[in-house]
Amino acid sequence: MDYKAILDQAHARIESSIHRTPVLTSSHLNTLSGCHLFFKCENFQKMGAFKMRGAVNSILSLSDMERSKGVVTHSSGNFAQAVSLAAQQSGIPAYIVMPENAPQVKKDAVRGYGGQITECTPTIEIRQATADAIVSEKSATFLHPSNQFEVIIGQGTSAKELLEDQPQLDFILTPVGGGGLVAGTALSAKAYSEKCRVIGAEPKNVDDAYRSLKSGKIETNDSNNTIADGLRTQLGDVNFPIIQKYVDQILLVEEDEIVAAMRLIWERMKIIVEPSCAVPLAAVLKHKELFKDRAVGIILSGGNVDLGKLPF
Amino acid sequence: MDYKAILDQAHARIESSIHRTPVLTSSHLNTLSGCHLFFKCENFQKMGAFKMRGAVNSILSLSDMERSKGVVTHSSGNFAQAVSLAAQQSGIPAYIVMPENAPQVKKDAVRGYGGQITECTPTIEIRQATADAIVSEKSATFLHPSNQFEVIIGQGTSAKELLEDQPQLDFILTPVGGGGLVAGTALSAKAYSEKCRVIGAEPKNVDDAYRSLKSGKIETNDSNNTIADGLRTQLGDVNFPIIQKYVDQILLVEEDEIVAAMRLIWERMKIIVEPSCAVPLAAVLKHKELFKDRAVGIILSGGNVDLGKLPF
Repeated sequence: MDYKAILDQAHARIESSIHRTPVLTSSHLNTLSGCHLFFKCENFQKMGAFKMRGAVNSILSLSDMERSKGVVTHSSGNFAQAVSLAAQQSGIPAYIVMPENAPQVKKDAVRGYGGQITECTPTIEIRQATADAIVSEKSATFLHPSNQFEVIIGQGTSAKELLEDQPQLDFILTPVGGGGLVAGTALSAKAYSEKCRVIGAEPKNVDDAYRSLKSGKIETNDSNNTIADGLRTQLGDVNFPIIQKYVDQILLVEEDEIVAAMRLIWERMKIIVEPSCAVPLAAVLKHKELFKDRAVGIILSGGNVDLGKLPF
Repeated sequence: MDYKAILDQAHARIESSIHRTPVLTSSHLNTLSGCHLFFKCENFQKMGAFKMRGAVNSILSLSDMERSKGVVTHSSGNFAQAVSLAAQQSGIPAYIVMPENAPQVKKDAVRGYGGQITECTPTIEIRQATADAIVSEKSATFLHPSNQFEVIIGQGTSAKELLEDQPQLDFILTPVGGGGLVAGTALSAKAYSEKCRVIGAEPKNVDDAYRSLKSGKIETNDSNNTIADGLRTQLGDVNFPIIQKYVDQILLVEEDEIVAAMRLIWERMKIIVEPSCAVPLAAVLKHKELFKDRAVGIILSGGNVDLGKLPF
C-alpha cells in the first residue's frame, strides 16, 4: 500500500479540524537523557489528546448517509472525548460507552462536547457488547479507539507533522495502549523518513504488546493496574500486523519510573501531561545507551488529567 | 527618557541569555471571557519565570569589576533562582537571602543553579538587613527583585516581545507584587504601542498597590495571606512613580477566584502556572465588561509551583 499517499490524504482531510501542535525541547531533559529530545505536544491538541486525529479522520471518511446516523464508540476516556467533539464538528450524534470507573473529569468532558454516555462494567467484552447494541438500535457506525484503519492513519498524522518539523529524527517513541498510535506512527516514519525507527513504550504492569511481539500473537493482560490509564487496553488484529512489521521494539518501564518522568515533564517543561504520556520519556531515561546523542522524537499523547488525583 | 531606546538596548543585551517565549491562545477561554486573550508564556522562560529577564539585564549592565565580586539578593523565590542562573551564566557568585518559609522546591532550584543561600526570618526588614551584611562582607552588588531600574527594564522586555507578536493589543495585564513587572510592562506599552493600556491585577488580601495608587504613597500590607506567594511584597520608590504615571488601574480579585483561574489555565491550556500567574485572568473574568471584544495580553509570569502543595 502507498501509505504516504494515504497519510497525505488523511492529513489534508483533517487539517482544518485539528491543531497543528508545537514541538518543544528542554535543555535540562537533553542533559539528563544524553540525547536530543523533541516533544510533539498532542496534549495541546483539540480536546487534549492525539485521539482527535483518528476520530476526525474516521468520521470524515464516512459516506454522508453513514455519517448522518451518528457514531458509537467505547473508550476509557480520550477517544470518547475525541469522537464527541469530532461528531459535534460534523453535526451528528455521538453515542459513547464508558467504563463506570472512568475519571469524572473525562465523563464531564464527553458531556461538554455533546456526547451521549452509556456507562458499563469496565471489561472489554461488556464494553463491546454495549456498543454493539447501540449500533443495532441506531444504525450508527462503530468507531474503534485503536483498531480501525482510518483511526490508525489519523493518529499517524502527528508523526507526519513531527517529521516535517524535525526530519533528522533517528527515533520516535510513543506509548502503547491499544496500538493505534504506535502503528500509525510507524507507518508515518516508514512513509516520511529513510532512517527513523519507531519504538513503543509500555508499562511493565500491562506489557501485553511486549509479550505479543515476542510470541507473535495478541496477548492480553491479567491486570490493568497501572497509573497510565490510557494504556490498559490491548492490541487488535488491524494494528498488530503493522506493529509486527514496522515497530522496532517495545521498552518496558515500572510505575515509579512513569511517575518520576511525568513529574520531570511537569516541573521542567511546565506543561501538563497524562501519566500515559510520560511512559516514553521514562523508557528513554531507563535505556540511555540506546539513544545516546541521537535525535529522539516523543509523542506526548495527551494532557487530560484529573487534577484532584495527582500521583504527587 | 527615551524608554524605547533603553528597552531596545536591554533586549539586545539579554536576548541570547533568555528564551523568546511563545504566545498561546485558547478558544475556550476566549469564549468564557468574551475577549481575545493572548498569553505570553513566561512560565516557559529559563528557570521558569519572567524574573530571568531583569536578573540578566542587571548583571550584564554591571562593570566587569563590579560583576566579578558577585551579586546579592533577597527573594521569596523566583528572583532568587533568576539571579542564581544569570550569575552562573556569567561565572560569578550569587548570594541569596531567602525567607525560611519559602517553598522547598524554590530553595532546591536556587541550589541547583549554584546560588549560595542564607535563610532568614520572613520579614522585609530582616531580609534587607541580612542582604546588606553580605554586600559589606563580599563587596558584592545588591540586586533588588523589583525596585531597580535595570530590573524593571529587563522585565519590560516580555511586553516588548508580546507587542512585536501581537501589535493590535488593547490591553496588557500583569500581576502586581513588588511592582517591577507591571512598571516595566507599562514602559514597554508606552514605547511600542499607540493605544495599549496596562492594568495590574492584585489579590484583594494584599492590595497594597491598589491602595497606593488611591492614596498617592506607598502602602504596606497588614497580612501576606494569599495563595499568590509571588505577590506578597510591596511597591518601591523606583517603580511606584512609573506605575502612577503609566498604569491605568489595578483590579482586585479574591482567593477563590485566583484558584479557579489557575485551574482553568491548567485544565484548558495544559500548561503549569503559579497562582500569581492566574491573578490577571481572574481579573478579566471578574470584569468582563471592561474587556468585551478587545485584544487582551496577559503575562503569565511563572510556572514554579510545588506540585506537592496544589490548591486542588
